[in-house]
Amino acid sequence: MTDAFQQILDDARAASVVLAQTPTTVKNQALLAIATALEDNSDRIVTANAHDLNLSRGDGMAEGLLDRLALSPARVTGLALAVRDIAALPDPIGDVLRGSTLPNGLQLTQVRVPFGVVGAIYEARPNVTVDLAAILLKSGNVAILRGGSAAENTNTVLVDVIGTALENCGLPRTAVQTIDPFGRDGANRLMNARGFVDVLVPRGSASLISAVVNDSSVPVIETGSGVVHIFLDASAELDMASDIVHNAKTQRVGVCNALETLLVHRDAAVRLIPAILERMVESGVTIHADEATREIFPRADVATADDWGHEYLSLDLAVKVVDSLEDAIEHIGLHSTHHTDAIITNDMANAEKFLAEVDSAVVMVNASTRFTDGGEFGFGAEVGISTQKLHARGPMGLSELTSTKWIVRGNGQWRE
Amino acid sequence: MTDAFQQILDDARAASVVLAQTPTTVKNQALLAIATALEDNSDRIVTANAHDLNLSRGDGMAEGLLDRLALSPARVTGLALAVRDIAALPDPIGDVLRGSTLPNGLQLTQVRVPFGVVGAIYEARPNVTVDLAAILLKSGNVAILRGGSAAENTNTVLVDVIGTALENCGLPRTAVQTIDPFGRDGANRLMNARGFVDVLVPRGSASLISAVVNDSSVPVIETGSGVVHIFLDASAELDMASDIVHNAKTQRVGVCNALETLLVHRDAAVRLIPAILERMVESGVTIHADEATREIFPRADVATADDWGHEYLSLDLAVKVVDSLEDAIEHIGLHSTHHTDAIITNDMANAEKFLAEVDSAVVMVNASTRFTDGGEFGFGAEVGISTQKLHARGPMGLSELTSTKWIVRGNGQWRE
Repeated sequence: MTDAFQQILDDARAASVVLAQTPTTVKNQALLAIATALEDNSDRIVTANAHDLNLSRGDGMAEGLLDRLALSPARVTGLALAVRDIAALPDPIGDVLRGSTLPNGLQLTQVRVPFGVVGAIYEARPNVTVDLAAILLKSGNVAILRGGSAAENTNTVLVDVIGTALENCGLPRTAVQTIDPFGRDGANRLMNARGFVDVLVPRGSASLISAVVNDSSVPVIETGSGVVHIFLDASAELDMASDIVHNAKTQRVGVCNALETLLVHRDAAVRLIPAILERMVESGVTIHADEATREIFPRADVATADDWGHEYLSLDLAVKVVDSLEDAIEHIGLHSTHHTDAIITNDMANAEKFLAEVDSAVVMVNASTRFTDGGEFGFGAEVGISTQKLHARGPMGLSELTSTKWIVRGNGQWRE
Repeated sequence: MTDAFQQILDDARAASVVLAQTPTTVKNQALLAIATALEDNSDRIVTANAHDLNLSRGDGMAEGLLDRLALSPARVTGLALAVRDIAALPDPIGDVLRGSTLPNGLQLTQVRVPFGVVGAIYEARPNVTVDLAAILLKSGNVAILRGGSAAENTNTVLVDVIGTALENCGLPRTAVQTIDPFGRDGANRLMNARGFVDVLVPRGSASLISAVVNDSSVPVIETGSGVVHIFLDASAELDMASDIVHNAKTQRVGVCNALETLLVHRDAAVRLIPAILERMVESGVTIHADEATREIFPRADVATADDWGHEYLSLDLAVKVVDSLEDAIEHIGLHSTHHTDAIITNDMANAEKFLAEVDSAVVMVNASTRFTDGGEFGFGAEVGISTQKLHARGPMGLSELTSTKWIVRGNGQWRE
């Protein structure tokens, strides 16, 4: 007997066989059809969303979360635009990555293929539903989506609208399914559907991601929290350092590539700290500093051990004076989440040493850490920043949502 | 307080920082020094191995396993040769995989870096200890090795010999460590050392690999068992089919790329089955066949449901007649472990359909499945055949034991 959840897994597998063979033109037509369907069904989507918003407001959801949950007609139009952008990106499927002809005449090619069935677990943000559905469709993958329960009505309508658009293009409606109606039990079953789900992508807060990583027997691509460091080397130029630090901390807080800890070389501390921290305070940043920093900039709060390696995601900044480049690298090794770390320097040997020895997904010299982003890197779409070393590291675009397959063509070869 | 096991993890991390920066020439010198040291310490290695063999014989270990455990002077020489071969391979570390200059002038490069600390869990085969140590050293990774307890004395001497050779080349002895003395508890701690061990590679039987996949919180590269299929299409040429099937089943049994199930198109069954199965029986193969096959070749045993998807690793072969290419693809989808599957055909459209729709790490047309092998593919060294879709799929060479890192070089850029 197959229960309703198992049926979803089986339907997803069947749809994945179709999607893996679907040509780019058909996938693009389907994406454009989805975009149009979202616009055409804007009223229905916004109405379902209003229902979710009412329920969540009744449950006392915080304003910031309500804002992330909310879809207005303008936001629906924005979602449709984003889907059209994904349709315009190159399709990675079928790319030949390597190939050779062996001495015995066998022809080898390694080609990009979809993962197959990709599960996603995320929070109550309906835009993520559309975003993931479009990115996974473009990369030939079938989606099983688990959004937050608070967005269940919105997600149900979105997946229905997407499914009808898929069917109108001759593709299976089951290429994009939601398991929101199964609640927490559904999330648990998804995490343990090894053999049915090829890869799981959690997207959201550090605690959500860590729960999925720990509980899942399906392989997970860990997208990560960012305890991002910038080290101001002894030779750092003041204006450049100030612009980059200010940008990395204040241009947008609450994102994983925002600065959390500033390290300053002792030889440059007196020269750099006053102007840089003064500008931060003017922008509303609270400074949590070690003693050496506070001697130079007494208005800073006293940092405690908890401030190092802390992902504030707010207008807070930890600041520490270090004795050397080596000490900076050591501090980063201990406290970074290995997302993005940067050095500001005019010393070429120090720049190269930092780039080589700091073991993070992205290492930078003389640039704002805010550039760690699929869009900024030119990938078009992004499904998060991977902080793991397996499979994908750094911003993940469409090609990071694929696997490969070896094709061997012979004419009767057998092994001696 | 740091216990002895945690000390191993900490030492490994410290060594990984050194190894990641070690130039290819130094790594190659170390590999050559290891090869020489193995030869120079042959007596000591063989004596320790004799001790292990005595203990295992006393414990009633089967002859086949004793043979895999045994090291003779000639086998030690073979190990040294294998290490020299690895020294001669190209070093993947530092390869630039992608790069671009962004419109704002930022220079992006994606470079290959080692994973860092790699754990390996395998059975009592001391040659694997040397093989993994050499492959991991070449790819800039630090090794924490857990071989079977039955090889503990041999592994301890091998790791000591390797460590001294590393030290003599100025590299940390802790770049290759064994945790055999910690027994099963050590294996469990290794599997749960997330954050300390970057990747875990199990190598050995299907049950060992499945236990590691299920119990490990460290990301695992699953190297796989092979339920390998060959499908003889209606147009398959008899001599080619017979040579390939015979080779795939009998050239070496007990390996993951050996044939386990033969599927034959109904339209070719009478033409192909008698001669092909006759030759198999002459080579000592036991045939487990469905009714349609037995009507043509009555000497075959009756296949039960358990024969489909069974990895015999012995001179046994399951044989089934199917009605069509689609039925063959469906059977493979249900029963393959997605390692290697092949079609023998002279029909171009059928070949392309099979290659596109069979979702296995390696798909072949008109060639023996025995070619799925890192050595045959020209990779030089191999750490197994990955049957998972994440990170690496198919034969894994040195570059599959690496991660990547994005390097961003700017001159003061910040984000608008």
